[in-house]
Amino acid sequence: MANIYDSAYDLEKAVRESQEFQDLKTAYEAVMADEIAKKMFDDFRNTQLELQQKQMQGMEITEEEVEKAKKVVELVQQHDQISKLMEQEQKLNVLINDVSRIITKPLEELYGAQEQQ
Amino acid sequence: MANIYDSAYDLEKAVRESQEFQDLKTAYEAVMADEIAKKMFDDFRNTQLELQQKQMQGMEITEEEVEKAKKVVELVQQHDQISKLMEQEQKLNVLINDVSRIITKPLEELYGAQEQQ
Ligand SMILES: [Ca+2]
Ligand SMILES: [Ca+2]
Repeated sequence: MANIYDSAYDLEKAVRESQEFQDLKTAYEAVMADEIAKKMFDDFRNTQLELQQKQMQGMEITEEEVEKAKKVVELVQQHDQISKLMEQEQKLNVLINDVSRIITKPLEELYGAQEQQ
Repeated sequence: MANIYDSAYDLEKAVRESQEFQDLKTAYEAVMADEIAKKMFDDFRNTQLELQQKQMQGMEITEEEVEKAKKVVELVQQHDQISKLMEQEQKLNVLINDVSRIITKPLEELYGAQEQQ
């Protein structure tokens, strides 16, 4: 019987060595090495985080804030390096979500089986 | 280089065969097999879910609802089989959280490294 932590570290290694992670790393480092790109990306991130936090706290988001967020998104989408980075982030998100679904399947089956009774 | 999905399925197997999951399964099946315990547990779950959803939607939670939730929690905590189940759920949650932290470490390192610059 394989130990859960051993298997988890094997999986971590697989993530780290994957083409998806290596491509993300390259894209991230390219953005961080470019002062203007880095600032645009940080602005984008901060705007997203701010809105998420407001939403989670049940605070109202003003029309101006929505407009500002849209503009920041448009700006980063026009930047080749940043849109490449966001594309790689998206790919890794899909991968991590798949992995999460796989490893929590035993729980889903246990709880789901009862649901159907 | 190990494939991510192969490693994820290995980890799923390790979760499924773990003592923690087997103990959770036993505890869950014991509650589900007892009509009264099952009803109490379902009530508890539904109350928790309802409050969570309201919170996420930024809706106000009344004092009566808080009181009701407290009573439901007290009730299930006094039930041996249900408190055993909740204890096992908690153990598996810790395990799954540990695993999540391990497999997302490459990402944390990549983003964290830049943060410190
Ligand atoms: Ca059920
Ligand atoms: Ca930074």
